[in-house]
Amino acid sequence: MKKWKRSARLVHMTQQLLQNPHRLIPLGTFAERYQAAKSSISEDLAIIHEVCRSEGLGELETVPGAAGGVRFLPRVNRSSSRALIDRLCRSLSDPGRILPGGYLYLSDLLGDTSLVREIGRVFASVFAASGADAVITVETKGIPLAYATACQLGLPVAIVRRDSRITEGSVVTINTVSGSSKRLGSLSLSRRSLPEGGRALIIDDFMKAGGTVRGMIDLLREFNAEVAGVGVMTDSRVDERLVEDYVSLTTVNEVDVKGQRIKVVPGNLLERGGIQDG
Amino acid sequence: MKKWKRSARLVHMTQQLLQNPHRLIPLGTFAERYQAAKSSISEDLAIIHEVCRSEGLGELETVPGAAGGVRFLPRVNRSSSRALIDRLCRSLSDPGRILPGGYLYLSDLLGDTSLVREIGRVFASVFAASGADAVITVETKGIPLAYATACQLGLPVAIVRRDSRITEGSVVTINTVSGSSKRLGSLSLSRRSLPEGGRALIIDDFMKAGGTVRGMIDLLREFNAEVAGVGVMTDSRVDERLVEDYVSLTTVNEVDVKGQRIKVVPGNLLERGGIQDG
Repeated sequence: MKKWKRSARLVHMTQQLLQNPHRLIPLGTFAERYQAAKSSISEDLAIIHEVCRSEGLGELETVPGAAGGVRFLPRVNRSSSRALIDRLCRSLSDPGRILPGGYLYLSDLLGDTSLVREIGRVFASVFAASGADAVITVETKGIPLAYATACQLGLPVAIVRRDSRITEGSVVTINTVSGSSKRLGSLSLSRRSLPEGGRALIIDDFMKAGGTVRGMIDLLREFNAEVAGVGVMTDSRVDERLVEDYVSLTTVNEVDVKGQRIKVVPGNLLERGGIQDG
Repeated sequence: MKKWKRSARLVHMTQQLLQNPHRLIPLGTFAERYQAAKSSISEDLAIIHEVCRSEGLGELETVPGAAGGVRFLPRVNRSSSRALIDRLCRSLSDPGRILPGGYLYLSDLLGDTSLVREIGRVFASVFAASGADAVITVETKGIPLAYATACQLGLPVAIVRRDSRITEGSVVTINTVSGSSKRLGSLSLSRRSLPEGGRALIIDDFMKAGGTVRGMIDLLREFNAEVAGVGVMTDSRVDERLVEDYVSLTTVNEVDVKGQRIKVVPGNLLERGGIQDG
């Protein structure tokens, strides 16, 4: 086993830690891998921590004791969150997004992998201490956001289907009523995709009255699972909402189909806790 | 602007390069950001390149000239690809996956974010030189794989829908016939989600006779787009296939519902080019 120079160690440790957010790596693993003293590893970690912290990427958390180690926690500070939200507001305000019926075209945003990763980092910051052990979303458009958030939290993803598919095996299905249009629908989640009694973080792209999110909350109850949190990329102003406690990055206040104008403002994220100053 | 020490530079450059695969970063950007001479930056890059190369993560490619710079290209070597394929074969052979009709339960694998990222890295290696400017998949289960692959290639994702949704705006729809069950269906892709005349990489989780992939190829023709490649996590042995040229990580040779046995072997990936020895 070759002995590593500090410079090479720093590169490899940065890769290992940042690619595996929230995963605890014992110091001994690094010491053995790089044939280095634990004190040298600690110095390396201090350097990585300081760069991550000062550049607003996150921080290294050291867990002491025999079962301890170090893990990378992604953290997006207030100014970076604000910048992302402003960028989203500008992009969402583009009148070219207006579709018949006042719907908004969002697929370009949800297909932009670097934007989606940034949103995932923000949700992972906000819900870092939520105790979630899985992220759930409903097909189709929420999947990239849920996947990006789960990556940054080191969690698995479970996807709720609108129609029950044979490839999901035994499923739990509930009926839903859309809060805004009163349409009937159903949501199904594979029995195997979520452990009984867990805690799930709900992520979706868009919430109007919240019928779909409400359905996911009801579905979780069937699994004796708790809701660790709800995060949506954008919500829209409605008179009555079926979900009380959620985090939104942006809020669509008005879609004027005739005048071809969309009014989008920051959501409730920055008013809430969970985002560090800086 | 503060001057950075080499150790801090290495940490931050590693993060910037590895988090943005295939994105060209001018050397001047680094030199200015860290208040360092270009010769020092070049030395840093040589260290990062050497660690990435020797650890099988990928390589840094330097593009000379005024519009040049450096970019990280993820590369998975043959032994890492082999290890991932073996892991997939073992997991897919679990008889607990067998569903009524001989279907296989795959959602746990597709919800495992670190496994999905590894598969994305392998596809990004194989298709690094394919000239793709987008990744496409069909809802629902292929989306995490397509997203992971697109992240590693620095490309956007477009999602083909099985039913045309109002939130997709103007769409192109084609009718399909499933190659194995002769069922009729349709595939729709939003006009805006793919530029005319581009090159798209098709990624999906499972291919039987290939009717869905064939449908996506036909759909791409409607956009005057070319197929940059086709990658699937697993295919299954069939008498006649509607798609000739594709890459599979694994092949399901037999699902014995009565005997509760699945036979899974490595797919065609390692027989093809595009994977480096090592």
